[in-house]
Amino acid sequence: MTTPVGSGAVVDLLGALAYAELTAFDRLAEDARLAPTLDGRAALARMAAAEIGHHGRLHDRLAELGADPGEAMAPFVRVLDAFHESTRPSTWLEGLVKAYVGDGLATDFYREIASFLPEPDRALVLDVLADTGHADFAVREVRAAITANRAVPGRLSLWGRRLVGEAMSQSQAVIAEHDRLAELIIAGTGDLSGVALLIERITRAHTKRMKALGLNP
Amino acid sequence: MTTPVGSGAVVDLLGALAYAELTAFDRLAEDARLAPTLDGRAALARMAAAEIGHHGRLHDRLAELGADPGEAMAPFVRVLDAFHESTRPSTWLEGLVKAYVGDGLATDFYREIASFLPEPDRALVLDVLADTGHADFAVREVRAAITANRAVPGRLSLWGRRLVGEAMSQSQAVIAEHDRLAELIIAGTGDLSGVALLIERITRAHTKRMKALGLNP
Repeated sequence: MTTPVGSGAVVDLLGALAYAELTAFDRLAEDARLAPTLDGRAALARMAAAEIGHHGRLHDRLAELGADPGEAMAPFVRVLDAFHESTRPSTWLEGLVKAYVGDGLATDFYREIASFLPEPDRALVLDVLADTGHADFAVREVRAAITANRAVPGRLSLWGRRLVGEAMSQSQAVIAEHDRLAELIIAGTGDLSGVALLIERITRAHTKRMKALGLNP
Repeated sequence: MTTPVGSGAVVDLLGALAYAELTAFDRLAEDARLAPTLDGRAALARMAAAEIGHHGRLHDRLAELGADPGEAMAPFVRVLDAFHESTRPSTWLEGLVKAYVGDGLATDFYREIASFLPEPDRALVLDVLADTGHADFAVREVRAAITANRAVPGRLSLWGRRLVGEAMSQSQAVIAEHDRLAELIIAGTGDLSGVALLIERITRAHTKRMKALGLNP
């Protein structure tokens, strides 16, 4: 990618992601308490710990770029908090589906945008987005629950679809409010049909994740 | 120390500490949400992450000793949960005092007992008890709050004294219920006057911490 990227857009993206990691920590830590076993609780707590490690790296990079990390995160607090408020899991399995399906969706989205960034920020973002063990653990637990109880997949499929709906509407809101991010996406994808292809790729990956859990996308 | 220590007592201590680290994670993660700034929130989240790292090391050592980590932790769940339930901070400053004064007290207690353990468990316990940054951060924040508001020290001093009272009564309950731990402490300290000296050392360190915060012990 040779698109010139304004440093403002880089700060926006790193700020959004830094706050996303901080809320991911919160949420995984909260959901850990829903775990039916001490092992499950520790597994989610370890994932939360990985997120805060990522947060620290993004925070340090923002400072290195001369940005105030708190200010860079501030514009994304409301919308990310709103997303988590509106998708608060009420069971351990809902929490796992959110960790896998919701975070997977967010990760794909940030990863697409990261490909438009210059180095070293592209590598940093791709690195902090690397799976922290959510995937295998969530897939294993959810599939086991589905085998044990046939009512589970129907309810969790609905939950998965609700997560996507909320994620889509919140990310549209973020982009609409942040011109520099919107410009970055348009410039990076080339044009609006590029944007449509990006959404298609993200949707396809989401469908694959729902199926991996044994759910109906 | 050359006291022979039964492997049962080692498993008890590692089990208690492993669960203590898991609850410390939970509690720090919860208190992080009381932070007045994103930086404070991230600071507490990082401390929580360090605790879960310690938990993982104790968990692995228990498995290495042939113990089931879940079973080793189980006897300590009720009492440690009860302690946290009865000392749930209602403000950011209460959370910091608990992180510093409460964890300091627990750390001193575990460290005293660790000195009776054979290697490599003694080194492992001392290592996971090493300060994860609570101390400096808590002292700085609490002292700043005291400077800003003269009503703060009175309320927080009371809170600190309540924490010690609860910690003392809960740890007595743990020891009373676990013969192997009680024997370890008696054998390690030599006799009951050794136990009294141990309590005196712990109390002295507690007083020092309260004063470091600017509080009345």
